[in-house]
Amino acid sequence: MTSMILKNVRPMAGPATDLYIVDGNFVVDLPQGAGTVDCGGRILIPGLVEAHTHLDKSLLGLPWYHNEVGPRLIDKITNEREVKIALGLDPKIQSERHAILAMSHGCTHIRSHVDVDTHHGLAGIEGVMATREKLAGMIDIQIVAFPQSGMMTRPGTAELMDEALSMGADLVGGIDPCGMEHDPKGHLDTVFALAEKHGKPVDIHLHERDALGWFSMQEIIDRTVALGMQGKVSISHAFCLGAVDRAYVTGLHEQLAEHRLHILTTAPASAPVPAVKELHAHGILTGAGCDGIRDTWGPYGNSDMLEKAMAVGMRNNLRRDDEMALALDICTRGGAAILEVADYGLDIGCRADCVLVEGETLAEAIVTHAPRKLVLKAGKVTARDGSCVIEAP
Amino acid sequence: MTSMILKNVRPMAGPATDLYIVDGNFVVDLPQGAGTVDCGGRILIPGLVEAHTHLDKSLLGLPWYHNEVGPRLIDKITNEREVKIALGLDPKIQSERHAILAMSHGCTHIRSHVDVDTHHGLAGIEGVMATREKLAGMIDIQIVAFPQSGMMTRPGTAELMDEALSMGADLVGGIDPCGMEHDPKGHLDTVFALAEKHGKPVDIHLHERDALGWFSMQEIIDRTVALGMQGKVSISHAFCLGAVDRAYVTGLHEQLAEHRLHILTTAPASAPVPAVKELHAHGILTGAGCDGIRDTWGPYGNSDMLEKAMAVGMRNNLRRDDEMALALDICTRGGAAILEVADYGLDIGCRADCVLVEGETLAEAIVTHAPRKLVLKAGKVTARDGSCVIEAP
Repeated sequence: MTSMILKNVRPMAGPATDLYIVDGNFVVDLPQGAGTVDCGGRILIPGLVEAHTHLDKSLLGLPWYHNEVGPRLIDKITNEREVKIALGLDPKIQSERHAILAMSHGCTHIRSHVDVDTHHGLAGIEGVMATREKLAGMIDIQIVAFPQSGMMTRPGTAELMDEALSMGADLVGGIDPCGMEHDPKGHLDTVFALAEKHGKPVDIHLHERDALGWFSMQEIIDRTVALGMQGKVSISHAFCLGAVDRAYVTGLHEQLAEHRLHILTTAPASAPVPAVKELHAHGILTGAGCDGIRDTWGPYGNSDMLEKAMAVGMRNNLRRDDEMALALDICTRGGAAILEVADYGLDIGCRADCVLVEGETLAEAIVTHAPRKLVLKAGKVTARDGSCVIEAP
Repeated sequence: MTSMILKNVRPMAGPATDLYIVDGNFVVDLPQGAGTVDCGGRILIPGLVEAHTHLDKSLLGLPWYHNEVGPRLIDKITNEREVKIALGLDPKIQSERHAILAMSHGCTHIRSHVDVDTHHGLAGIEGVMATREKLAGMIDIQIVAFPQSGMMTRPGTAELMDEALSMGADLVGGIDPCGMEHDPKGHLDTVFALAEKHGKPVDIHLHERDALGWFSMQEIIDRTVALGMQGKVSISHAFCLGAVDRAYVTGLHEQLAEHRLHILTTAPASAPVPAVKELHAHGILTGAGCDGIRDTWGPYGNSDMLEKAMAVGMRNNLRRDDEMALALDICTRGGAAILEVADYGLDIGCRADCVLVEGETLAEAIVTHAPRKLVLKAGKVTARDGSCVIEAP
């Protein structure tokens, strides 16, 4: 059934009304013979958008991983690459478990980075592509071919990236051009050449802080402009935008806005983060993601983008109701715009991707993040009372 | 019933065993005629300790408060003082709601700061004292007489503080001697004079950052030593210990350790925080708290100290299992030691204040913080399956 009447529902915590869905879209006229769902005055928000995660590497459903990994980024990357097989981590099964958990929390769209390296080849891409196909119609999954272990430092990786993009990966990924790759020119030239060859957008992990990150970000902006890729480049994490020197950061904000680069924040608690109110004031599209969850990097995360809206709020010291609405906007409309989702929202004509949440206000819905009453994807029920309608493997 | 057999339980995630409780204490010998609780191999931890909160001012159970408050500390303090009555905030009812929520999550001990000011007089102290009495035997509540609005800037407050301590408040509170009081000597002399007069410990809110906070902290340390109050002084928040200049901070750590001052962190996401691994390495007793929850300051918080252990972990970038154990230790034993709780822990002879939690490991128990299966206070059941055995008003 993709026709439905949502009775006594409050879109974005506004006044109670009835909404009509026909063939998966919100429509004006009362549909004939459609079933009615009594929403009990609950708030309706558009589908939550997980705009930065790693579907191929969560350990959900596997025995607890005792983390004794070293403190550096490279410790985590090396450890993960080497223990994946011993842990029995199958990207197909793990990505399905992860995506179904996200769906149970009201997620309707995911952008996932997926490791491509010479150790595991394209196993990750193949696994997540299988999940994408299996869950088609219930959740939309974008795949970023992601050179987690580096391209410059591991010959053969760029060729695998090229193959991943030919196979069906949607975006070209990248990672710390200086800190990981030790060759910013080589790395970024390769990333953008792949993007140009395949006509696909770019999404680069940038953990580099302060001036190192500013340098790499400037190199990314310059290539975006040179290739006419305005609106097609996202920078994930962007810790360098959380630097103390706000005057320098403002200069970057102005360029990001002018050339329409996007920022995806994971709002980590222990690293500097982009200031979402400043990004908003500059008109920079901003989305959010849970990043990797329950993996060899760390034990945290549950793939709940409503809880992540809370984390965005807490990390950015948002307290007022209008500020809380911004946190939610980032986890819904912001991510959707960056993922270029068509017909997104609760307006007439939009695809009925939406979530019924608990609370008197949007702020209360965020801070309580109670189990979602109902989740619809194109008008089809995908989760009820916090549980996905399909079971994880 | 305060005699009980806890069957198939894993203390601190160790091997499964049976534990015996008689007259509210853990004992060696199998009690005759005691009821048996099958713990299903779950983990047992000692009671969670909420070591920094504000029981008198949560808005739990009241209509949603639309926050439009300004960005400064003084905006929040002034707004709160002025809207409390209009909002219908009754400290007795609110503190009972708040404490019962904490109990539902496995909290067995609370230290609460309670506002004392010339606007509301001792209404807060009286309200929380009534709740303390009503919940006696189910949860232990320490009351800090807290001059939230300042003593130097609001004449008459010091006299009310004196009265609060005579009435039964357990500790003398204080707040930003420079930033709020504009008179560090006057403020701290008053705080320590009250402590000396009443023979009670001290717990001071210190939000001041960097060098300002270092100055105030040094003044606190010096008075602690001068009055021989080693072991009796806690500093809450202590954002200045999260400063970038670690060499200077190390000098303070060494003094805090030598003179046995304690640190209570609320692990806020958007302010600098004391580095708990460094505090631990110096042997400084560290506890944690949720701070105010769902109040006029902000919408966040649910009084769950197991979730707060996760926040402590995330804010301090703890990822390894041994590091996660430290986060839990802070929310249990650390807080208990600072609150000077006698017979705390899971050993023979200890008071049976304990919580049955879900997970294969302590780290998993923290990151999932699933509803608590069972909570005992001196061997009596206070919560089951996430719900307190008594209802909130």
